[in-house]
Amino acid sequence: MKILVLNCGSSSLKVGVFDVGQTTTEVFKASYERFEAGSCSYTIRSGGKTETGKIALGDIAAALRALPHILADNRITDIDAIGHRVVHGGERFRTTTVLDEPKIAAIEALTPLAPLHNPANLLAVRVAQEVWPSLPQVAVFDTAFHGTIPPRATTYAVPKAWRDAGLRRFGFHGSSHKYVAIRAAEEIGVPLRDLHLVSVHLGNGASVCAISRGESLDTSMGMTPLEGLVMGTRSGDVDPGLFGFLSRQLGLSIDQIEDALYSDSGLLALANSSDMRSVEDRAAKGDADAQLAIEIYAYRTRKYIGAYAAAMGGLDAVIFTGGIGENSPSMRRRICDGLEFMGLRLDHDRNQSVELANHAAPQIQAYGSKVRVIVTETAEQLMIARETAAALAPMAPVPQPIPVAVSARHAHLSRPAIEALFGAGYQLTPAVPLRQPGQWAAAERITLEGPKGRLERVAILGPERSRTQIEISRTDGFELGIDAPVRDSGKLEGTPTVRLIGPAGSFDTDGLIVAARHIHTNPADARRLGLVDGMLVDVHIGDQERGLVFGKTLIRIGANAVTEMHIDTDEANAADIRANGEGSLVPDLRAIAVPNKEPL
Amino acid sequence: MKILVLNCGSSSLKVGVFDVGQTTTEVFKASYERFEAGSCSYTIRSGGKTETGKIALGDIAAALRALPHILADNRITDIDAIGHRVVHGGERFRTTTVLDEPKIAAIEALTPLAPLHNPANLLAVRVAQEVWPSLPQVAVFDTAFHGTIPPRATTYAVPKAWRDAGLRRFGFHGSSHKYVAIRAAEEIGVPLRDLHLVSVHLGNGASVCAISRGESLDTSMGMTPLEGLVMGTRSGDVDPGLFGFLSRQLGLSIDQIEDALYSDSGLLALANSSDMRSVEDRAAKGDADAQLAIEIYAYRTRKYIGAYAAAMGGLDAVIFTGGIGENSPSMRRRICDGLEFMGLRLDHDRNQSVELANHAAPQIQAYGSKVRVIVTETAEQLMIARETAAALAPMAPVPQPIPVAVSARHAHLSRPAIEALFGAGYQLTPAVPLRQPGQWAAAERITLEGPKGRLERVAILGPERSRTQIEISRTDGFELGIDAPVRDSGKLEGTPTVRLIGPAGSFDTDGLIVAARHIHTNPADARRLGLVDGMLVDVHIGDQERGLVFGKTLIRIGANAVTEMHIDTDEANAADIRANGEGSLVPDLRAIAVPNKEPL
Repeated sequence: MKILVLNCGSSSLKVGVFDVGQTTTEVFKASYERFEAGSCSYTIRSGGKTETGKIALGDIAAALRALPHILADNRITDIDAIGHRVVHGGERFRTTTVLDEPKIAAIEALTPLAPLHNPANLLAVRVAQEVWPSLPQVAVFDTAFHGTIPPRATTYAVPKAWRDAGLRRFGFHGSSHKYVAIRAAEEIGVPLRDLHLVSVHLGNGASVCAISRGESLDTSMGMTPLEGLVMGTRSGDVDPGLFGFLSRQLGLSIDQIEDALYSDSGLLALANSSDMRSVEDRAAKGDADAQLAIEIYAYRTRKYIGAYAAAMGGLDAVIFTGGIGENSPSMRRRICDGLEFMGLRLDHDRNQSVELANHAAPQIQAYGSKVRVIVTETAEQLMIARETAAALAPMAPVPQPIPVAVSARHAHLSRPAIEALFGAGYQLTPAVPLRQPGQWAAAERITLEGPKGRLERVAILGPERSRTQIEISRTDGFELGIDAPVRDSGKLEGTPTVRLIGPAGSFDTDGLIVAARHIHTNPADARRLGLVDGMLVDVHIGDQERGLVFGKTLIRIGANAVTEMHIDTDEANAADIRANGEGSLVPDLRAIAVPNKEPL
Repeated sequence: MKILVLNCGSSSLKVGVFDVGQTTTEVFKASYERFEAGSCSYTIRSGGKTETGKIALGDIAAALRALPHILADNRITDIDAIGHRVVHGGERFRTTTVLDEPKIAAIEALTPLAPLHNPANLLAVRVAQEVWPSLPQVAVFDTAFHGTIPPRATTYAVPKAWRDAGLRRFGFHGSSHKYVAIRAAEEIGVPLRDLHLVSVHLGNGASVCAISRGESLDTSMGMTPLEGLVMGTRSGDVDPGLFGFLSRQLGLSIDQIEDALYSDSGLLALANSSDMRSVEDRAAKGDADAQLAIEIYAYRTRKYIGAYAAAMGGLDAVIFTGGIGENSPSMRRRICDGLEFMGLRLDHDRNQSVELANHAAPQIQAYGSKVRVIVTETAEQLMIARETAAALAPMAPVPQPIPVAVSARHAHLSRPAIEALFGAGYQLTPAVPLRQPGQWAAAERITLEGPKGRLERVAILGPERSRTQIEISRTDGFELGIDAPVRDSGKLEGTPTVRLIGPAGSFDTDGLIVAARHIHTNPADARRLGLVDGMLVDVHIGDQERGLVFGKTLIRIGANAVTEMHIDTDEANAADIRANGEGSLVPDLRAIAVPNKEPL
């Protein structure tokens, strides 16, 4: 598929054309900026040549209308679809979306959330509809990758009326964070779903993203692109008391303060330049303002890496990207140098000699460093092309119903646990057979105890296992006072400890989890449903109106398994299911696209 | 000394009387609140008895004026001084201060920074002057402990005009963070100056503080007590874009937004109650809002712990204090449970069975946990009493001049370094003897190389050492592009690596530091100057007007050392010293006071 990508800002237009197949190749690239007095500057790279100059195009719309001729001149024909970068998708647009009039209107309604960006993005959509009326127009949202961030990180502790008005963390730079995470996983040779990553995008805008098992778990930009790191001209985090202080002391209005936080803050305010290269050069010559600006910039980035490692419960790799992340070895070093306590050590020669051509993603950690450090060029346009192609790919076969079973809290016990709880040599009593062959509920029950309270008469499922595993709901966790993580069955490392109490004694053990929802199935059904062991799918449960889509549902194929989805009691309550129900697979539009070499 | 401590808020008054000597004992305690219709509620604890009730005191001033009688009734006489809690000391008041009229006026001028708190604190000062005209009045500032936070953490990335108007991080809860840090060091049995601590104060107000080597290095509250953690009714961190959004969408003014961020946010906004006990109880019963509030509260606290570990380059202990920190085992557990990757593991039984009477500070980490976890009651009033007594202690003897020498960048080399740089068996050539006996500058020079640049012709000081140590200035660090930490000589663990280049080859080594300023002295001079090996002193250098006080200067006593202070070139430039100068010891008013058992 040949995808035209349009990234239209308020004062510039970036264009890319990509051949998307098994690999993705950029075949054309252009940018238009500095529109004034009826013309603008442009750069075009195509067929191995680069051309720059001035051209008589007075505004962005004019540049867009001229594109068909320019593409034809470069022998780029047969565009299949247009992918648009749209900055803000709000609550509604969590995935890449094929645009129609109601959807465009819905994006327009999000303007208050991104007053500068969304109107510019929509201008490109409007002109593209006019210029290429027969092509599908697809919106790829900067916010969409962050749709997985849990409420604990999206919710500000502010009045409900404000949250109802739309105030929450959205996050930006989504295509960049997603692309570099995929690229890093490929480089490391470990699937994304087994990695905890921190992506550090340091460009003119800057943000950090915690990417846990392939999904955004938190990010430093918030409701707007103003929160988080120090940027070229933006402040990043400030004390919210600043507004009242400046209003009372300097007589400034909200608009004046906000304008200054966007345009006159950050590196520019600290060091009189928003260009890190110039700031670094002046710092090396002894300029105290430039030195302090660099220290603040690195310090705040380092704190976010520490915070996100704590958020994820560990860290496998830090990825640097964006102009500064890609090009400043001393900034990378300054950010990393305090992190040895968490197992991160740079190799200074590798850090110094980073080469990024052809999508390289060199690892620059020292030998033996537990945490990897990777540098790679971001490729938002390429990611937009892949997402666009994926959104237009033929739909999966018509969804088939899958039975849904509700799992109440229960324990799988090991031999030492059984003996501690019930006595030496004790054998559990199978009482009720379960649907999965060979599995049963025991006649015995146990009590769970945590810092806040107890759960009595908890079921035991047999047969016994090599390792004790206790599955509870999130609400059960609050009753115990223990924050049990959501885990796949058997993935117990680092899980919290709970006390089990039986008639013969008590037993303290780790292995307390909220079981990740999953679908048991067998090879025949899996083939029929288009499923592969270990893949994650979305499942729709309930009726069209009140139903829910359960994302990230793990497929587990067993030779004799009965096809059945397992959810816990909280999930069942949310979907208004009492004991059993039915779900259907949602066609996956978000398949993670692995990019490839770019020959330009 | 008998110290009366007054902690006067806008609607309540807390009173304590302490006997401060080798140990500190609280002999009287009272609180007055809910002033209405000519009376208020009070609690008095004295002589092992507690008395509560209503009393006919219509406002705080009346309660203060009644204090002499109430103290006399409880046989508390012979007060020596009054210590006042003052919330905001601004830029000017970095230490505990004996008050006079100009100083009171200077505190009044800080009202815009703490419009609610400082006027209430000063009311107590005014009434106390009237009631006890002959007693010294001493202000102990919540902000003072944070005077050591470096500019990288106090500076917001906002326009210079705003920073000049006073916008910077100050931090609060200083007396609490300082007290619990001292108490934790005592409990661990390691001097504060060898510890990296994170103090987590979770009360109705809440803040986290990174305490490195006894000094506040960063804290979550900022210019105001609004920044940082989620609190009872305060929001903590929010996106600064919130003001513009709420103004445009809901028509709210700065004052309305600020009021709501102070009073209608935090736990109250998330879970309809600012009382964590009630929130926890409702969460256990399945209330989804209460569950989310707890998750957000714990999550944000955990991220700050990770961020501050990264800020300090490691973590020896986390200290929990304040109502929630002291009393909620499940909140402590929820905060700690994701931190195993940095070597922190709780012992769940110990966490569960914390007893805090008599200033206990139990350790609740698991056996083998690299990071300790300590719970202790905070004792701000006791700390204020100790600080007040210390501020009134007799001054140190008249300062004596100390010669100051400026150290340019130099290296101390080990045998392997010398052989790599100059060849096998090479011996350095002593060229210029130094003032410290037995030390000399070598004829040889080397080059240092970092990611940003090189420093040529760097001096080598002999004789050779067992470990290579390279001492540079902060500006040299920017020229190399390496963030060298400020360290005492010989404290090289975790220091960054630099490349040394000599005629025979290059040598990569850690040991790159900015040498902490220090004073070499000998036992006789030390006795005369009242100095002890390892203590930290303040030294004034330069004239009265343009001079600087260099805090945290390390005393190093050597048998034959010549008394001399060593500073680096950046410090010399700051103090306008060319090659040599003179300094004088500043009497220490900030001596760290170790509290003791309280018999109430």
